[in-house]
Amino acid sequence: MKSLLVQKFGGSSVADAECMRRVANRIRQDKDDGNDIVVVVSAMGKTTDRLIALAREVHADPDDREYDQLLATGEQISISILAMALHHLGVEAVSMTGPQAGIRTDGSHTRAKITGIDPVRVRENLDRGRVVIVAGFQGLNPIADVATLGRGGSDLTAVAMAAALKADRCQIFTDVDGVYTADPRVVPSARKLEVIAFDEMLELASLGAKVLQSRSVEFAKKHGVELEVLTSFERKPGTLVKEASDMEDVLVRGVAADKNQAKVTLRGVKDTPGVAAHLFKAVAEAGVNVDVIVQNISEEGETDISFTVPRDDLNDVRKCLQSIENVEFREDLYDDTIAKVTLVGVGMRSHTGVASSMFEALAERNINIQMISTSEIRVSVVIDEESANIACQALHTAFGLDQAPDS
Amino acid sequence: MKSLLVQKFGGSSVADAECMRRVANRIRQDKDDGNDIVVVVSAMGKTTDRLIALAREVHADPDDREYDQLLATGEQISISILAMALHHLGVEAVSMTGPQAGIRTDGSHTRAKITGIDPVRVRENLDRGRVVIVAGFQGLNPIADVATLGRGGSDLTAVAMAAALKADRCQIFTDVDGVYTADPRVVPSARKLEVIAFDEMLELASLGAKVLQSRSVEFAKKHGVELEVLTSFERKPGTLVKEASDMEDVLVRGVAADKNQAKVTLRGVKDTPGVAAHLFKAVAEAGVNVDVIVQNISEEGETDISFTVPRDDLNDVRKCLQSIENVEFREDLYDDTIAKVTLVGVGMRSHTGVASSMFEALAERNINIQMISTSEIRVSVVIDEESANIACQALHTAFGLDQAPDS
Repeated sequence: MKSLLVQKFGGSSVADAECMRRVANRIRQDKDDGNDIVVVVSAMGKTTDRLIALAREVHADPDDREYDQLLATGEQISISILAMALHHLGVEAVSMTGPQAGIRTDGSHTRAKITGIDPVRVRENLDRGRVVIVAGFQGLNPIADVATLGRGGSDLTAVAMAAALKADRCQIFTDVDGVYTADPRVVPSARKLEVIAFDEMLELASLGAKVLQSRSVEFAKKHGVELEVLTSFERKPGTLVKEASDMEDVLVRGVAADKNQAKVTLRGVKDTPGVAAHLFKAVAEAGVNVDVIVQNISEEGETDISFTVPRDDLNDVRKCLQSIENVEFREDLYDDTIAKVTLVGVGMRSHTGVASSMFEALAERNINIQMISTSEIRVSVVIDEESANIACQALHTAFGLDQAPDS
Repeated sequence: MKSLLVQKFGGSSVADAECMRRVANRIRQDKDDGNDIVVVVSAMGKTTDRLIALAREVHADPDDREYDQLLATGEQISISILAMALHHLGVEAVSMTGPQAGIRTDGSHTRAKITGIDPVRVRENLDRGRVVIVAGFQGLNPIADVATLGRGGSDLTAVAMAAALKADRCQIFTDVDGVYTADPRVVPSARKLEVIAFDEMLELASLGAKVLQSRSVEFAKKHGVELEVLTSFERKPGTLVKEASDMEDVLVRGVAADKNQAKVTLRGVKDTPGVAAHLFKAVAEAGVNVDVIVQNISEEGETDISFTVPRDDLNDVRKCLQSIENVEFREDLYDDTIAKVTLVGVGMRSHTGVASSMFEALAERNINIQMISTSEIRVSVVIDEESANIACQALHTAFGLDQAPDS
């Protein structure tokens, strides 16, 4: 069946000429199968880092517009080299910068949002049987300047281009072959998932699973773009990311551990109105993202508040709390030996008892739960870091993830 | 006096961050003097070579459009880095790619011609007091692709931009401080010229004086753009290139030797109609540029034809003549030990006797003249290569070039 595919290859997939040839060969195979193909590429390997280093040599804090003008060249090099590599294989191909591909953005340089895509030239060239290679990470802003999309921008370019072209699928090529039920290095029985729901993928992305950035998954969900995460090293199916309504609900899709968190506890906080607001405003102003928050009920006008933050930010939080005004407390405690373990599954929406089963499984292993946080499709617990791997293995088994669903 | 200056800096002037800072400092000084400034830059140092090498790794003969897409990034890097370097000095500056600067070209990739410039954004930014930095060597072709201008393209960008903006002067910064009456390494008494006429500069450019490319000088002459050739290393006047009508005529402006020529002689050529046409068509088809041609009068249906070609092309010419059809000759001789020595001066238009004085001066040194070629403002002789330096020195003295005109 002839499909329109948007394929995205990241910087490590196109690191040098040899990689370019391999990617070109992969594209040729899919083209030979009768598919129409749009390719989105990032800058080659360390190109962006080199450009940033060059900029820093002349200015410690370069102007955002000029920064974008500079960085956009990285992808422009990739697209033309990949076009040449495809030509070498006898495949008709044409490269397009973000602006040429009709990608429009808002005016915020270095973290622009895509405001629309008008892929006239892309369609014209597809109609002429060509592979169209689009520079990721960039577009044209309202005053005709190049703007870059920021972190994960090339994934976003691919997803947005797929939406604009109503492509059959957007394939994100990475160095892993898909999304797993758990980290295979921790849980040997972890299995590659054939499918995962957008919402599940979003929960995993926020957990730090680096496969796909939240922005791209959200965009794909909003525009109904079917995503596939797959490896560029082998030709085999990856993991499909799609609407939950199109797939069988499972109670738990996967289990993940985030060991990059630290816990802050304030004991004996004077429980006056607005104290939590003061506290978390101060932490936010220190540039720190708070994840799980737990506040116990107040006793004798005092309460305990615990929250988790990225481990690297722990010192910033400590400084912030030492000088905080409007918040009185007896003691501040810091623990950077914790982990957050999370179960994800859209089936939880219509099932109860996942949390209690989870606590039971952990209790059986004598794992103490320090904090609990839940959403519609997720249960997270904060536990001792040393127990994280055992917890993942126990939960993987307890929720039947060791076997494939149909086995 | 406030002027609008277009300043062009070549690849060696912007080779690295250190060079960029020096160029930025130079621009700042001219800006502080109250001038409006548009800067045209080439790619940094070896950037273009590196991009070409990368392309060759994936394709022996890359597609022209993709080649341009690739090479255009070199100048795009330069403009943004130079903008940042100016910002660092507190100078307001903005970079523009060729397309952003409104440079339109025809459709011939890798050697496009500028068809027009619509410098709306350049003017807007000048009006806001900014230094505008334009990528040399590139423009937007009729189907909205980037096209490059080929060799000397950045000079041409600068001259065309100066014409479009009606700039007061186009300054071409090089590693020499101006145009000389002769090569100072050969003629110690050579002087830097304050002015030189467009036509004189054109004759010198075709002689291989690498200071300015013919295309740029022709464009400047046609559009009345005053050029200045000067060094980026020191802040001092260079050589002005302008209309002869605006300057005092001198009989001889300078003397130059071209040692990169070789002489081909065909003896006993059967003198039938069209024989010269056949001969030079065959040489042209071999991709060789013929310079001086001399044909003696025919005797008994036979003639001798001599011509000069670039020395590197001598073998191609030899091969070409060995297989030539329609041209019969007795003997072919090749001499790669010749030099062409040329006197240039717009004053020759209205004076006679330059050629005879030249021959006299050479005769006094016992230098034998092998071929003679003249134009309205030039006399060239082909002589033995060994005599070239002595010839230049003798002519420099004989035509009064050792002293400044007003001394």
